[in-house]
Amino acid sequence: MGISAMHITVGQYLIKRLHEAGVRQVFGIPGDYILDFYEQLYEGPLEHVGTCTELGAGFAADAYSRVHGLGVVCVTYCVGGFNCLNAVAGAYAEKSPLVVICGAPGLLERGRSALLHHQVKDHRTQLDIFARVTEAAVALDDPARAPEAIDAVLDLCQRRKRPVYIELPRDMARARCMAPRRHKRTMPVSNPATLMEAAADAVELLNQAKRPVILAGVEIHRFALQDALVRLVEQSGLPVAATLLGKSIIREDHANYLGVYEGAMGQARVRRAVERSDCLLVLGAFMTDINLGANTAQLDVDCTINASSERISIRRHHYEDVRLDDFIAALAKGLRRRRNIGKPRDRKAPPFRPKTGQPMTIRRLFNRIDAFLTRNHMVICDIGDSLFAAADLIIRERTEFISPAYYTSMGFAIPAAVGAQMAAPKLRPLVIVGDGAFQMTGQELATIARNKLNPIVIVLNNKGYTTERYIKDGAFNDIHEWAYHRMPDLLQAGWGAEVHTEDEFEAALMTASKNTSAFSILNVHLDPWDRSNSLERLGQSLASRK
Amino acid sequence: MGISAMHITVGQYLIKRLHEAGVRQVFGIPGDYILDFYEQLYEGPLEHVGTCTELGAGFAADAYSRVHGLGVVCVTYCVGGFNCLNAVAGAYAEKSPLVVICGAPGLLERGRSALLHHQVKDHRTQLDIFARVTEAAVALDDPARAPEAIDAVLDLCQRRKRPVYIELPRDMARARCMAPRRHKRTMPVSNPATLMEAAADAVELLNQAKRPVILAGVEIHRFALQDALVRLVEQSGLPVAATLLGKSIIREDHANYLGVYEGAMGQARVRRAVERSDCLLVLGAFMTDINLGANTAQLDVDCTINASSERISIRRHHYEDVRLDDFIAALAKGLRRRRNIGKPRDRKAPPFRPKTGQPMTIRRLFNRIDAFLTRNHMVICDIGDSLFAAADLIIRERTEFISPAYYTSMGFAIPAAVGAQMAAPKLRPLVIVGDGAFQMTGQELATIARNKLNPIVIVLNNKGYTTERYIKDGAFNDIHEWAYHRMPDLLQAGWGAEVHTEDEFEAALMTASKNTSAFSILNVHLDPWDRSNSLERLGQSLASRK
Repeated sequence: MGISAMHITVGQYLIKRLHEAGVRQVFGIPGDYILDFYEQLYEGPLEHVGTCTELGAGFAADAYSRVHGLGVVCVTYCVGGFNCLNAVAGAYAEKSPLVVICGAPGLLERGRSALLHHQVKDHRTQLDIFARVTEAAVALDDPARAPEAIDAVLDLCQRRKRPVYIELPRDMARARCMAPRRHKRTMPVSNPATLMEAAADAVELLNQAKRPVILAGVEIHRFALQDALVRLVEQSGLPVAATLLGKSIIREDHANYLGVYEGAMGQARVRRAVERSDCLLVLGAFMTDINLGANTAQLDVDCTINASSERISIRRHHYEDVRLDDFIAALAKGLRRRRNIGKPRDRKAPPFRPKTGQPMTIRRLFNRIDAFLTRNHMVICDIGDSLFAAADLIIRERTEFISPAYYTSMGFAIPAAVGAQMAAPKLRPLVIVGDGAFQMTGQELATIARNKLNPIVIVLNNKGYTTERYIKDGAFNDIHEWAYHRMPDLLQAGWGAEVHTEDEFEAALMTASKNTSAFSILNVHLDPWDRSNSLERLGQSLASRK
Repeated sequence: MGISAMHITVGQYLIKRLHEAGVRQVFGIPGDYILDFYEQLYEGPLEHVGTCTELGAGFAADAYSRVHGLGVVCVTYCVGGFNCLNAVAGAYAEKSPLVVICGAPGLLERGRSALLHHQVKDHRTQLDIFARVTEAAVALDDPARAPEAIDAVLDLCQRRKRPVYIELPRDMARARCMAPRRHKRTMPVSNPATLMEAAADAVELLNQAKRPVILAGVEIHRFALQDALVRLVEQSGLPVAATLLGKSIIREDHANYLGVYEGAMGQARVRRAVERSDCLLVLGAFMTDINLGANTAQLDVDCTINASSERISIRRHHYEDVRLDDFIAALAKGLRRRRNIGKPRDRKAPPFRPKTGQPMTIRRLFNRIDAFLTRNHMVICDIGDSLFAAADLIIRERTEFISPAYYTSMGFAIPAAVGAQMAAPKLRPLVIVGDGAFQMTGQELATIARNKLNPIVIVLNNKGYTTERYIKDGAFNDIHEWAYHRMPDLLQAGWGAEVHTEDEFEAALMTASKNTSAFSILNVHLDPWDRSNSLERLGQSLASRK
């Protein structure tokens, strides 16, 4: 390596690379197998954010990654790792680039005959398990090769936008190694001839079409292609819909924006435009059941161009080795210019007038939120009607709608608010979470309090798992009711209010809005059977599934 | 199968077999891939206990299993399964027989092209991961073979005392199958000649020894050998120590009981007796680092007989195919009778007199608890000083000390109290939990409230991860302080008190003792650096580890 190499410890090198990649905060809980690395973290430029649970750390890091581009969760061996596995699996499913750093017993202590605490079967167990939910999993068990291994997995994480796993044996954190001073990332390039052929192929179909429509998904956000998408839309004049997972990849008051497409779950107007299109251009979208309105979507492959970071399919043939950004840029150049097909619509939310004494409903609540949102907010939705009802909210900036709409793991939203607001401190999170989901990870409000974040948390208190009530009802969907608005008493921070009626909600929302120094939590009582239009359609669809 | 077979659905057969195996409660959270099975559960003889989180369900089922002999956790696909993985891994590590039932997409819907929600990589992901933390993992994807598969894994679970995993695709729960009316469990038998040789071998060594001692571990409890152990002890007159994980496998006021052996961590008196023994008979103990006082134990293999459910090692040779119960019975028959070597000691806890205004310390707190405990309590300890300090408490019955002393996963105790008290409704749990651990799973107090259980919860509020402070201190060991005694306000149930001094603790304990209709929670303020003698020794040992 000559003069471009340096002496450094394995732990320091890992921290240096993460910092160079733009990471500023690391989420996690220490444990004895990772304590040496934690000590190194505190000596370096990264800030550690301690959470209540490792699952919370995982969700926080995932959300940080969604906003910031790369997130890190750092926990101890097995008990820590397994507790955040679900969050890592979700990040894999939804392409959120997450670096998972787990401690492990030191190499030297493994030879002893005694079983080590936190161990399950053998020294491979944790690595083998994480290999199944990450893009790559590596154990840094050789200092000489550690820098190369670190560079390789970080590259992969950023290129594929999926989690990677780094196992750091206790005695390796401070092991010395030689490392390159500067790391050159290798990024794949498009094959020029393939790109040209694919673009020409797509341009021809789109230019001939009478009713072309773009359906854009979450990869637009993950690969930072929002500006490229806007250029494509504005230069071609094509209308654009978003998937639910991709919601907010284009600002939703854009004249060409149709709304969220989700098959039978979504608005009929959007569905008509997408499904009646004679050439649908799908960009970076996952073809998933929830994205597709629980499989109610009717898309004709013979009228579809489906381009993602993995490959481009045009009707029934495929192109590989073409980058999504190159493809979008080539389309922007090649497509003929049309006058806007979609009429510019008034995307201003209608004003909301609360009716005194009127019990709050999910529909009215979301109408109120829609009128309340500004470009200084971000919306973070948990799973359930928190998400489904939110599909029609108007998001005015990009990256400001965050939800695990494909993996649909309950309990995402509260810890996600930690990571999201740390990544974008100027935006105030509006967190919408069901009561069942709140009970899973609501304790991370303590992390919110500790870090002086100020989300407005709206708990949809419908006394159980209402989404499931519509699939199959039974006592198993009931939960114990908490006085959610009393979390501030428990945490000795924040402000809470109990809401039954529209006027109470109005007053609480106004107080919360002014309470910018800490979190606010609104316990909104709803009828257990109250639901949004979207959920009504989803429930019918899932219940009839055979 | 002729007349001994019957028509039944796969789900019903699984429920029937669990019920026959003695299971009465099933812990878990429903999700759409497991809803059909939940409906079947509610139609059958088993009671469903809904928890706040799947991790809580896993710990509850594990504790239920430790007390009752077999536990069941039932959750949905991936998001549910992964969230309880850590509890299942802990049950594997500590040999707690747990049946994990996870939903999965229906076989018929897997052929469709769309990705299904909750999915990570492919349809094998969840099964492959659980295979790494269970004794056996099976997917019930063929109704014809499902009964046989169910019988096989349930047998294995009960025989090896380790978790098994059953994946139930959504459309298989109500699939019809032919099943045997009665299931004959196949249990391994000892090879008579091997048993005779092994027993003679051990008897000779023990009878010749001058200072023989028994060290008994958790398998005595798992395999229900407590009475057999007492017979062996009383017929031979040998003194007996317990491992930390095995604590309470013999009632601790027994005349021959020495105390908990844990190397340098434990009491010097016990350590001397065990390490100076010229023939140590280890029965069903895990040779783990925490059990062995963080590897400070000094046991001489040339003076050791180590018998477990897996094999018997005498000095440096091994016997297989010998059951632990047969071996213990043979020893009881063959050993010569000695007068008690250990003098019957006064195992009555010294009376406790609270000093008014005196700040509470961990040592005094455990002195008080020791005097408080009766045979109507069970003690459930979380990880940290909650466990280490508890080693010297005097447990008066068997199976009444529960703690994950080997796997050492924080957050075990509160959900474990749910399962343990449901398995033994006549005993009142005394739950000792650190503040860091409480923040992980404390919301399961809601499950405790919902099911009208009445544990007394003592939160050791030392403002962070005190055990770690002694290994390596830093701000990473600090946590946000909650007003733990206000959980009743949040949950609208139970009773709480804040405690600073000995007299406050006394008053709170008395009130809690009388409050038998609901849980009580005592928020006991401690100095962040206050610790038990055991923790002092453990911290020194871990910090000096290289």
